[in-house]
Formats: sequence, C-alpha cells, structure tokens
Amino acid sequence: MSAPTPPLTPAVDLAGTREAVDTCLTGFLDRKMRAAASEGMPTEAISVLRRFLTSGGKRLRPLLCVCGWCAAGGHGDTTTIVRAAASLEMFHAFALIHDDVMDRAATRRGAPTVHRRLAQHHREGRSMTAARHLGVSTAVLVGDLALAWSDELLPTVDLTSRQLGAVLPLIDVMRSEVMYGQYLDVTAAGHPTGDVEYALRIARYKTAKYTVERPLHIGAAMAGAPLAVREALSAFALPVGEAFQLRDDLLGVFGKPQITGKPSLDDLREGKHTVLVALALERATPSQRHILDALLGNPDLDDAGADRIRRVLTATGARAEAEHMIIIRRTQALRVLEAARLPPAATAALRKLTGAATARTS
Amino acid sequence: MSAPTPPLTPAVDLAGTREAVDTCLTGFLDRKMRAAASEGMPTEAISVLRRFLTSGGKRLRPLLCVCGWCAAGGHGDTTTIVRAAASLEMFHAFALIHDDVMDRAATRRGAPTVHRRLAQHHREGRSMTAARHLGVSTAVLVGDLALAWSDELLPTVDLTSRQLGAVLPLIDVMRSEVMYGQYLDVTAAGHPTGDVEYALRIARYKTAKYTVERPLHIGAAMAGAPLAVREALSAFALPVGEAFQLRDDLLGVFGKPQITGKPSLDDLREGKHTVLVALALERATPSQRHILDALLGNPDLDDAGADRIRRVLTATGARAEAEHMIIIRRTQALRVLEAARLPPAATAALRKLTGAATARTS
Repeated sequence: MSAPTPPLTPAVDLAGTREAVDTCLTGFLDRKMRAAASEGMPTEAISVLRRFLTSGGKRLRPLLCVCGWCAAGGHGDTTTIVRAAASLEMFHAFALIHDDVMDRAATRRGAPTVHRRLAQHHREGRSMTAARHLGVSTAVLVGDLALAWSDELLPTVDLTSRQLGAVLPLIDVMRSEVMYGQYLDVTAAGHPTGDVEYALRIARYKTAKYTVERPLHIGAAMAGAPLAVREALSAFALPVGEAFQLRDDLLGVFGKPQITGKPSLDDLREGKHTVLVALALERATPSQRHILDALLGNPDLDDAGADRIRRVLTATGARAEAEHMIIIRRTQALRVLEAARLPPAATAALRKLTGAATARTS
Repeated sequence: MSAPTPPLTPAVDLAGTREAVDTCLTGFLDRKMRAAASEGMPTEAISVLRRFLTSGGKRLRPLLCVCGWCAAGGHGDTTTIVRAAASLEMFHAFALIHDDVMDRAATRRGAPTVHRRLAQHHREGRSMTAARHLGVSTAVLVGDLALAWSDELLPTVDLTSRQLGAVLPLIDVMRSEVMYGQYLDVTAAGHPTGDVEYALRIARYKTAKYTVERPLHIGAAMAGAPLAVREALSAFALPVGEAFQLRDDLLGVFGKPQITGKPSLDDLREGKHTVLVALALERATPSQRHILDALLGNPDLDDAGADRIRRVLTATGARAEAEHMIIIRRTQALRVLEAARLPPAATAALRKLTGAATARTS
C-alpha cells in the first residue's frame, strides 16, 4: 500500500467540527429551556436531554456528515452543514434513549440511563413499580422530543429546493432503516441462533447504514454530490460500519465497563443475536451449545455465568473470527477509500475516523 | 342566535376528505410494505400500524386541517392539503400508540392496544414478563416509525418556500406542545389534587392546542392565512378543545365501554389529574376526599371501587360542573365562529365539528 497522500487542501477540522456541533446543540436546548420555563412547560425533560447530550459520545455521525460534505467538494461557510450534523446527533440521542428502554440498560456513558435517572427522580411518594414505569414513560417522551427536535434542527428553510430534494429522502430512509434494524434486533433478542447472515443484516441496518453510510450521504447531498461519489462512500461505509458493530459486540462482552461506560453483562442478559454469538452458536460442540442455550438471555445472569459464556465465545474461535472480520472489513474500506480519489482532506479524515471506529476501546 | 347562514360556496366535503385522507394513508403504508418485504425488513411493524390506523378514529385533526385551509380561502386542488392532513393523522397514531404504553391501557377502539397485541403475538417461547416487555419495545418502535413517517407524508418538497416558512414552525410547535402536555399528564398522574387550573393547563396543551388549534393553523398556513384569520381560529379552537377534553374525561369515567371502545376504569386506575377529578377534590367533604385519596391511582381498582368514585364525582357536583363547563365553552366557540366571518362553507363545517367533538358518546 502506498504512503498516505499529503493533504493538498486544508484538513477537515474534526475537533473544531465537534465543538461547533456541541455549541449548536446546547444553544438550541438553552433556547428551548427559556421558552418552556416562560410557558410553565416541563423543563425537566429538556435538562435531562441536555445532560444526556453533553455527557459524552463520540459524535461520529456529525463528523461523518461533515466528511461527506467535504468528500463531495463542500467548502466555505459551515453553518448549514453543522446544523445538519447537529440534527443527526439529536436524532442519535432519541435512538439511544429509546434503545436503553428496550434493552433495560441501567448504565450508559458511565452514568444511569435516562429512564433510570428519571425513575430515581420521581421515586418519592411512589412504589418502586410506579416509579420505574414513570421513568420509562418520561424517557420515551424525552426520546420523542429529541426525534421531533432533530427535525427542527435541520436547516430545511435554508436549503435550496434542489438540496431539499436530495437530503430529505436520505433523512427519511435513514430513520426507517435504523428503526427497522432495531425492530429486527429486539425481536431476535432472547432467541439467538447460529444464523450469522441474519446477525449481519441487523448490523447492516442498525449500524452500518445508520452510523456511517447515511451520515456520509446526507453530508454529500448537501454539497450536491454526483452518484459516483455517493457510490464510493457506500462502498467505504458499509464495511466500516459492520466493523464498528463487530467491535461494539466484542466490547459489549469483553470490554472493561470502567472504559466502555456500560456493564459487560447487558448484551448477554438480553440474549442479543449478535454476529459474535451467532458465530459461537454455529461452531459450538453440543456441550458448548448447552452452556450458551442455558445462559444467554437469562435476566439473572451473574458474573460467573458471564465468564462461562466468554470462555465458550473464545474456545469456539468466535471471538478471534470476529476480530478477523473487523480486520478484513477495515482493510477493504481503506482500499476503497484510497481508490476513490476524494479530496485529500476528506480521505485523511475518513482514514482517521475508520481507525477510531474499529480499534476503539469504548 | 341567528339561523345558520346558508353556504354560498360549495360545502366542505367532510366525508370525502375523510376518505381521501384514508386513501392517502393506506397507499403510503402499502408502498412501505412492498419496499420492506423486498428488503427483508420487518413488515410486522407496518401491518400493525396499518391495522391501527384503519380500525377507527374520528379523523378530527385532518378534518380540522382542511377546514383551516378553507377558512383561509384555500380552494381547488386538494392533493397537497390532503397529504398534510394525512400527516397529522399519522402523527396522531404515534401519539396514541405511545400514550397507551404510558397509560398501560389494554384496549383502544374496542380492540387490544398495540403493545398488548404485539405482546400476544410474541408470546410463544417467552415468559409473560419477557413477552410484555417485547410488546412495549415493539410498540414504542411502531410509534417511532409513525412519527418519522408523519414527516415523510408532509408535502415538504411541493410547498413554496413561503408556505414552508409558515407551516414547518407550526408543525414543530404542535409536536413540542403535545409532548410537553403529555409529560405534564404522566408526571401528575397518581397524585391528583384539587388544582383545577393545572388540570386545565394539561388539557390546553395536550388537547386543545394539539387537537384543534394547530390543525386549523396548519391548514390555514397552507393557504397563506393572514394573522387575523389565525387569531380568530385560535379564539374558536381553544374553548372547543377544552370542551373536547372535558367530554373525554367524562366519557373515560362515565362512558359505556361498548361505545367508547375503552374500559371506564383506566383513567381512575392511573389516577389521572383531570379537570373532573380536580373539581371533585376541590369540593369534597373530608369523607369524600378520603374515598378519592384511597381509590384514585390504585392499580387494582375494581368495579365496586370505581362506582364509589363515580358516586363522589356526582355528589360533589363535579360531574355537573364539567358538563356546565362544556356548554360554556361550546357556546363561546360558536359565538366566536359566527363573528369571525370566515367563508360560509368553513363556518358550517366547523359548526358541525364543534357539535361532534363536544356532544359525542365515543
């Protein structure tokens, strides 16, 4: 492989983009907060969302959106593209808040999930059951607000009708894809099988398209990308996105909770139909399969049980195969990227994000 | 009061509008179904949503949207306004599906609610707890899809930038208002008080603005309504909407389940902070208050307990007062309507809808 091409145009400022997106999000929520306070509306919902959005997160989707814009020749004033990028992050807050309800997750980014925090907040004067239910109800509403507000953040009225016609259908498709992917994910949970293809389909819709391909496409469409650029971005995005999900599966089981910010039991307790688990079930001996069938999806799984599952995931070679699949996909993505002859600044930024997305520890 | 003015322009075709909206919705969902089937996506989510949307509903919001359009002088080709109206009904499906999860409602429109139906559908091979949780998760996702698709139904690309600038902010405001109103509603439930003003504030945001004012405004904005028309529509809408919610409160407690399609215990079991309940708590003697405090919000409330509550609601005069408040609001709305000098067809249709919304039995 040739040495990285030195950038000929100014580099994509990833740290600056991140900051601009965060400023856009907090400014938006602060305006919402003032308006709600003046009308006697529940500011609690907004402060919970603000805390969630500012408590971490890789901002991968906004960064990829800006990279897609650069890849298609976007340059100059970034106000409009930053708003579109911030809208994707707001949408992602919606997706995570609802996902955590569905996965009954207690912790995210090292802190209680939104439904847990709200249950705690409303505990006084209520039974535990009533408080937990209220935590779920209000978290669903906070997620709904984030979804509605992701729309409000879109710079719809500032776009030309040509841009609108290119961008809005991609936003629509992205939303349906991630919701469908999540639907496949929750209905398959509890009954994982050795069907690796099915697990890859979930990963493709829930993650590869949603997290990588569509943010790139949306950014590119803002800059009026021709079909060839969009196709090159897809060919790069899908393997990166699958590698991202494979890394997520591995971290969800073998990651250190103090680094990932989430417990390493949740995926196993929910019995998620991940590629990692499907690979193990496909290769398991009868006695290994017996262990997996008995323990995966058990809501009372303890650390000892989780260790038994981990040993089977390792012994079957599933863990090594998942790592191998990540390398294959990363290599393929980087090869596509070099061949695509995008503006060098975009190529350099995408190379960097590929590394961050697939070799991460959190 | 003078006799109804005979229409000088063709009447607003309410039945035809209803049919056109339904055709738009089912056509949209059928296209989604074909696309999902061809890509291996979960068609179950779509068929559940289609069944929900076609199993009843008054279509009040779409009809009011078209009335708002006529009120502002809209006429001729109805394709675009019907799409906007259908979008409101799709949004309403989202709101109801999520509300039923939050209210733990078992029945809606005489049939199991979406989360109950989905729990039943996924019962096999799962514990009751796991199936119920999956029912909730998938219902939240079906609601999320409906919210995303309400956006997709909006005829955004067919609107002029002037129309976009008028309509989109109203859609944004409507969404936030109903979500805020719902947030107030769920956090107040279980602890109703004699604070009638607070109950009216919930009714105003959750229902009056969402169900009546904003649909009228959105339709009017599509026809480029001047401020005066929007103000007249607000002055009409808010009392009608409050009356609508008061009727809803009464039907939720005193209605016949075989006509309303929902059980008459749910609101009482949830301990909803309605105007009806607040009026009773405000007027209750110590022994009546003791009954209400002991029984409202009790998840195990039975028919005998509900009858005891009903007797207190009647004996305190709360029921009669709620009926009286409906009459006052309806009269006020009709007076505003006569004075507004809207196109006679719009006036006639709004008069008809006012009757249907406030004197209904389901």
